Amino acid sequence: MLYCVEMDVAIPHGLDPDHVARLKADEKARAQDLQRQGKWLHLWRVAGRYANISVFDVESHDELHDILSGLPLFPFMTMRVTPLARHPSAIG
Amino acid sequence: MLYCVEMDVAIPHGLDPDHVARLKADEKARAQDLQRQGKWLHLWRVAGRYANISVFDVESHDELHDILSGLPLFPFMTMRVTPLARHPSAIG
Amino acid sequence: MLYCVEMDVAIPHGLDPDHVARLKADEKARAQDLQRQGKWLHLWRVAGRYANISVFDVESHDELHDILSGLPLFPFMTMRVTPLARHPSAIG
Amino acid sequence: MLYCVEMDVAIPHGLDPDHVARLKADEKARAQDLQRQGKWLHLWRVAGRYANISVFDVESHDELHDILSGLPLFPFMTMRVTPLARHPSAIG
Amino acid sequence: MLYCVEMDVAIPHGLDPDHVARLKADEKARAQDLQRQGKWLHLWRVAGRYANISVFDVESHDELHDILSGLPLFPFMTMRVTPLARHPSAIG
Amino acid sequence: MLYCVEMDVAIPHGLDPDHVARLKADEKARAQDLQRQGKWLHLWRVAGRYANISVFDVESHDELHDILSGLPLFPFMTMRVTPLARHPSAIG
Amino acid sequence: MLYCVEMDVAIPHGLDPDHVARLKADEKARAQDLQRQGKWLHLWRVAGRYANISVFDVESHDELHDILSGLPLFPFMTMRVTPLARHPSAIG
Amino acid sequence: MLYCVEMDVAIPHGLDPDHVARLKADEKARAQDLQRQGKWLHLWRVAGRYANISVFDVESHDELHDILSGLPLFPFMTMRVTPLARHPSAIG
Amino acid sequence: MLYCVEMDVAIPHGLDPDHVARLKADEKARAQDLQRQGKWLHLWRVAGRYANISVFDVESHDELHDILSGLPLFPFMTMRVTPLARHPSAIG
Amino acid sequence: MLYCVEMDVAIPHGLDPDHVARLKADEKARAQDLQRQGKWLHLWRVAGRYANISVFDVESHDELHDILSGLPLFPFMTMRVTPLARHPSAIG
Repeated sequence: MLYCVEMDVAIPHGLDPDHVARLKADEKARAQDLQRQGKWLHLWRVAGRYANISVFDVESHDELHDILSGLPLFPFMTMRVTPLARHPSAIG
Repeated sequence: MLYCVEMDVAIPHGLDPDHVARLKADEKARAQDLQRQGKWLHLWRVAGRYANISVFDVESHDELHDILSGLPLFPFMTMRVTPLARHPSAIG
Repeated sequence: MLYCVEMDVAIPHGLDPDHVARLKADEKARAQDLQRQGKWLHLWRVAGRYANISVFDVESHDELHDILSGLPLFPFMTMRVTPLARHPSAIG
Repeated sequence: MLYCVEMDVAIPHGLDPDHVARLKADEKARAQDLQRQGKWLHLWRVAGRYANISVFDVESHDELHDILSGLPLFPFMTMRVTPLARHPSAIG
Repeated sequence: MLYCVEMDVAIPHGLDPDHVARLKADEKARAQDLQRQGKWLHLWRVAGRYANISVFDVESHDELHDILSGLPLFPFMTMRVTPLARHPSAIG
Repeated sequence: MLYCVEMDVAIPHGLDPDHVARLKADEKARAQDLQRQGKWLHLWRVAGRYANISVFDVESHDELHDILSGLPLFPFMTMRVTPLARHPSAIG
Repeated sequence: MLYCVEMDVAIPHGLDPDHVARLKADEKARAQDLQRQGKWLHLWRVAGRYANISVFDVESHDELHDILSGLPLFPFMTMRVTPLARHPSAIG
Repeated sequence: MLYCVEMDVAIPHGLDPDHVARLKADEKARAQDLQRQGKWLHLWRVAGRYANISVFDVESHDELHDILSGLPLFPFMTMRVTPLARHPSAIG
Repeated sequence: MLYCVEMDVAIPHGLDPDHVARLKADEKARAQDLQRQGKWLHLWRVAGRYANISVFDVESHDELHDILSGLPLFPFMTMRVTPLARHPSAIG
Repeated sequence: MLYCVEMDVAIPHGLDPDHVARLKADEKARAQDLQRQGKWLHLWRVAGRYANISVFDVESHDELHDILSGLPLFPFMTMRVTPLARHPSAIG
């Protein structure tokens, strides 16, 4: 099942830069791992903002929540989740 | 270049049903044609709403505007357009 | 899978009253049928508004969309859909 | 009487992690106790967000306020409270 | 139990003036009857707007909904309902 | 003259707890004094939130401002002020 | 006492043009009469919009409501009323 | 003096198509005339919406209001006006 | 030229009280100086909030920006600027 | 391709003033360099606010994102990006 997820990141000023760098590296590794598993289907940068628009393909709401809440940057993210159904005009 | 477009449709009550049916059929044909051309890359239904989330792959803002403003249901749609850039963590 | 759906109803003034009465009767019959099937799990009236808060238990986003978009009053409803996951503190 | 309560949690960065862990454990124990008493009727996680949608069954607005304002994480929560009435199409 | 209710009225242009006049007279009679019964505890006009702020004292959410949805102008009103609890600093 | 005032309180985390306790005690004493003077006519807790809905009966905008801006918790409050006029359907 | 009032005008399309012209002439006459009486203290056009920002000097909320609700264009106006107090830095 | 103006156009359904066509032709002629005069400095289409972002260079707020309120499509437009000052980092 | 400016002040908790007191004294002196020059035409307190509604009479957007951005409390203010034109119904 | 970008700057209180001064100087140098390259086509100050409205002329969404996310003040900015198409009424 597909979900569109828009994630806005706001890292508080004053965090230790090394800690932030590690979080970002972990986030990247996790995002790439989930893409390789076919669960994080699309990942686009919103031009001009520290944000992304993504599409996830997972088994259930529970799996989606586990994935999103387990992201290293989750505590600094605002999430907008939209469940996607098949569109009658979609081909292929 | 990629654009995420969220389209909400609100057809005014009182329109002639045959006219609406023709508009919807034209919209479907146009959407499928644009998908076949590779310009309307993704088309998903927002579950529970008369709305879709789409991704377009076109040459320019002008081409995007020509496509969207030429849709048969355009006069009844509210559009939210987001330009998408490559994400540094995207693979493939 | 569970979805919380908040539905606000706004019937345009000027519709034929008999037509509206039939739509409401059909809506009620459909809602009760879906409750008996176990798909429309909870249905509450929002006190003071022509609106409800509901919980649906269905197989997929597609099934949710088919149910909601098939409601007789769907053209007059504004929907807010929220996918629900299991809460770690929930019992039973 | 039933109330739908949507709770969003935002724990400020910089709190002592042990203190936060204790608050979360206390919150969980309190939530489970209230569920066992039949007052916290439903508790669902909003998929992808540190938030829940709940239904409470209590005697009065006063009892609801005492329960909510007594939650260990209350100072970090944004609450949206909706009183629920019986829906004329609800069965059972 | 007390509820604060803010009601905004928007009567569509084009309604038959006699019908509107009858609705307003019925609304006034109903409002005064409910005040005499002690259920519509306070009724204030919002200065400068076709709106009121009211406080109701009723037995339950169901009774509140029956009263509000039974108002003659209900189809033209937007309602904001807030359940009120006892304040620890209130006297008397 | 009457004013409806909705006050939301948000005390920043990290303030000295003794200082906060003193502020709250002062706030309570001040609120009760103003009630006894007949200026703070009604004071209700918004169920589930650290907020109140109040009605003030004062001579002028200036007096209202002096009262509100002099509250010990004023620096932590968000105020929504609504001037109330007599409603033509109000009795008594 | 002073009130800032922001008025947005939205005249529905399809009204009889002669009727609208009479309403606007009546509105202008009424506005000028109230200015001459010293009650409508300031009247400015919001540049680029069919809207005004005004300051009224009246005895009470009731008088303000009578004036505003009696304006010929009142049914087509959205009002934002702000009570104004004396500013401690104001001179003269 | 410069003003950024964002104009959204919403032509009501049911207007006579010939009338609308004349309005649009008049609007275009007026827009081009104002561009030639150097008053309508920039005119861009918002991609995907029946809207534009424009910059005007006029003598005063009054002149801006006369120009905008005189546009043939003005009754169907929502305007957002932003006065622009010189930026300290602007060159040339 | 006239501008309506609504200023909301939010001084962060934790600033040195002496520093804040000096800023406020400087702000007051500056506001009074600008009033004496005839540039800060009106200055009203919004009743119940740490905010003001003001009218400025200056030569240009640049002068307005210089004045506002030079206010001692500017870093703590949220500004809403509205250019004001002459209203056709204004007298005198 | 053209993009309208509205940037609001909010520098957190408590940053080291020298660091802020360096960031602002770097920002200015970068903005002027991009203007000289013809990529930052217009740069206007929003009168009364620490904000600007800009127009960029770049090759792609990716280039826009690289430019914006590389600005020294980017971590303190809120961005609103609008892709601009050619307007059919634009001349020249």
